[in-house]
Amino acid sequence: MIEYRNLRVALLGGGSVGAQVARLLLEQKDELASRVGAGLELIGIAVRDVDAERTVDLPRELFTTDAESLILGADVVIELIGGIEPARSYILLAINSGADVVTANKALLAAHGPELFEAADKVGAQLNYEAAVAGAIPIVRPLRDSLAGDQVNRILGIVNGTTNFILDRMDTEGSSLEEALAVATELGYAEADPTADIGGYDAAQKAALLASLAFHTTVPLESVYREGITKVTAQQIESARKAGFVIKLLAICERLVHPETGVEGVSARVYPAFVHRSHPLASVHGANNAVFVEAEAAGSLMFYGAGAGGVQTASAVLGDLVSLARRHVVGGPGFAASNHADLPVFEIGSVTTRYAITLEVTDEPGVLATIASVFSDHGVSLAQVEQSMTPASTGTASHEAVPSTATLVIGTHEATEAALAATVASLAANSVVTNVASVLRVEGA
Amino acid sequence: MIEYRNLRVALLGGGSVGAQVARLLLEQKDELASRVGAGLELIGIAVRDVDAERTVDLPRELFTTDAESLILGADVVIELIGGIEPARSYILLAINSGADVVTANKALLAAHGPELFEAADKVGAQLNYEAAVAGAIPIVRPLRDSLAGDQVNRILGIVNGTTNFILDRMDTEGSSLEEALAVATELGYAEADPTADIGGYDAAQKAALLASLAFHTTVPLESVYREGITKVTAQQIESARKAGFVIKLLAICERLVHPETGVEGVSARVYPAFVHRSHPLASVHGANNAVFVEAEAAGSLMFYGAGAGGVQTASAVLGDLVSLARRHVVGGPGFAASNHADLPVFEIGSVTTRYAITLEVTDEPGVLATIASVFSDHGVSLAQVEQSMTPASTGTASHEAVPSTATLVIGTHEATEAALAATVASLAANSVVTNVASVLRVEGA
Repeated sequence: MIEYRNLRVALLGGGSVGAQVARLLLEQKDELASRVGAGLELIGIAVRDVDAERTVDLPRELFTTDAESLILGADVVIELIGGIEPARSYILLAINSGADVVTANKALLAAHGPELFEAADKVGAQLNYEAAVAGAIPIVRPLRDSLAGDQVNRILGIVNGTTNFILDRMDTEGSSLEEALAVATELGYAEADPTADIGGYDAAQKAALLASLAFHTTVPLESVYREGITKVTAQQIESARKAGFVIKLLAICERLVHPETGVEGVSARVYPAFVHRSHPLASVHGANNAVFVEAEAAGSLMFYGAGAGGVQTASAVLGDLVSLARRHVVGGPGFAASNHADLPVFEIGSVTTRYAITLEVTDEPGVLATIASVFSDHGVSLAQVEQSMTPASTGTASHEAVPSTATLVIGTHEATEAALAATVASLAANSVVTNVASVLRVEGA
Repeated sequence: MIEYRNLRVALLGGGSVGAQVARLLLEQKDELASRVGAGLELIGIAVRDVDAERTVDLPRELFTTDAESLILGADVVIELIGGIEPARSYILLAINSGADVVTANKALLAAHGPELFEAADKVGAQLNYEAAVAGAIPIVRPLRDSLAGDQVNRILGIVNGTTNFILDRMDTEGSSLEEALAVATELGYAEADPTADIGGYDAAQKAALLASLAFHTTVPLESVYREGITKVTAQQIESARKAGFVIKLLAICERLVHPETGVEGVSARVYPAFVHRSHPLASVHGANNAVFVEAEAAGSLMFYGAGAGGVQTASAVLGDLVSLARRHVVGGPGFAASNHADLPVFEIGSVTTRYAITLEVTDEPGVLATIASVFSDHGVSLAQVEQSMTPASTGTASHEAVPSTATLVIGTHEATEAALAATVASLAANSVVTNVASVLRVEGA
């Protein structure tokens, strides 16, 4: 049997994921060597401060602040710094100096993926990124390889654990968003600045990566429509529950035909949506993630697991590392980004979906007919309407008669975002509507 | 850009999966060529009777009864005949004549996998088998590649759609096994001879393949313990429901330490088991399949989808074909069976699990103490006991006093199969026990 020399592995970043990757590389040295057919030698960990406290006890001599020298001496570079710079420059340096790269950096890939994949392709380097897409859930290889002979039509993903924890808690405990966020922060599920999570930015980056993979088309981050969960109220969750739904922040990647031009294209978008309780995604609780894939031949598939966490994400990083190292040993190139399909990426206005709209209206004869005609004027047809009385405001100290109001919860059939936006604008301007309380999409039918 | 010649693809078998594979190969010719970087030319379909009716309309000139000539002219052979012979000989012929192979044949792989993988390895041929393990669910690449840097500790799989349909129907409709089987047969979920499914043979083959993949250890079919669902009663399902459980036929692959020798090894087994309703596997309904994986670093993962069906299985076959064809184009060998870990495979007697035991006992003072001491004599400790009165048999026409009986449902803590078997034997021989009504394992805690 041929003996291969050890592969020199450089780690950039010593945070929660980096420390776990280092620990597993050291602890499972022999097992990993037998899987790869060559040793994986951790030659160093580049950090900003070698004396910073780590979550795992690691040999001090591994740490260095000189990332560039470390990269230049490595066969494989694992980038776990996050953010755009210096991560981007380090990865390019690694690729151009002949190393292969593993990264978990979704922000960087969503913003600069094409540049990095092109650089890797040019020199035949491998660039693996399983941990960037859905944490520990294996989704890159299933989409890229297992479904390589199929056509993905739609992906509905719960790809952000923080927001799923918050929405799940609001649903199960009846908490407000603020209360649920406070618990998430206390339990370590939310960061001090939760904007990236609750604003939907993290999910949008993952949507761009998932759509690019699924549709063999470069989907830039700028073309991903994004709404976070900041406007989701306890009342919306309650009314979703009454109607048999749960509200989830979804990353949606869809193959569709443009409603006006008839051109085939794709859409990627992130927003909180109604999901029926019978849908498999409705049972994804806590900080877990899941990616629901609808494929032409395979039908519906779901991939479920932990979306984040240091040791869980380290599993995906090591899987990438072992796959890539095996290629070193057995030869043959890795697999570059697949973008041969190159479909147009549509804006949100061209997307068709269903809506759940909650209106507060004056309670007088003819209101329902007025509302219904606003919808039909914009070509949006109604699937169901539920009306409930709202107690008149108790804030009025006067004894004058206050007009009583009613709450209408309206479910529509499929309509374009454009038609819906026009409908909502008309509703808001109509004198019988006192408040457009909530507009949410319905997905996963 | 280099132009590659077309790859010649031979199909063996024109049944429901084969016909769908042929259709997709013909319909998606251009799309597949752009994914592979070379054309995939279907050169023929070997069948027993060229005039047999097909589920899909395909060009008659593709059909042949001369499988061997077809194989000898092919770059890739797709084997969808099923069974052991002639499938085994055809695959060996293909490998030895320089072709790569895709197969969906779980029976063959479970029985002769090592021989076939060795033959492929010897000549550097690829042998892909995603469709053999869990139908359309991508599980081979996640286990082999994505989790390559992790350690799988346990797999709980619902890997047989027919039995899941039957058990789900018994649970939701209160049907008997016979009634549910009749519906499954009527809907096409069960075959005319349902033995392979309800006897657990199909699930046992898949358990052998899953365990081999997960543990890098050859797990022969003979070492898979197997019980089917034939003895599952409506009453068991009902008592599981009352306790908050559902009964599922599980394929279980587990890494464990031998209770006596302390040696690390693995176990593969198939039996109907109690699964708590809060477990993700409990929500797998109808004929769907799911594979729940517990890994050291990644934590809990679940892969869900259609376990069978012609077009769904065809998706997995085409994914294998495209992956393999890409290797033809970009070079480099495929990936052989991984069995470097070579762990011992333990018999069922060494396995530790929890049990739910239903006993009918005479209703007299001291019975519970007697029963409890039988358990403790065998080192099996009790987690919970529920007692309910059973009406005395109405079959006795006599006016003599009949001793009334009670039903005990006993949940145990973890115990070995050996200890449990001894306990059950002692219980059956004890005069206070009139009937050991049910012994089922509890999994997925």
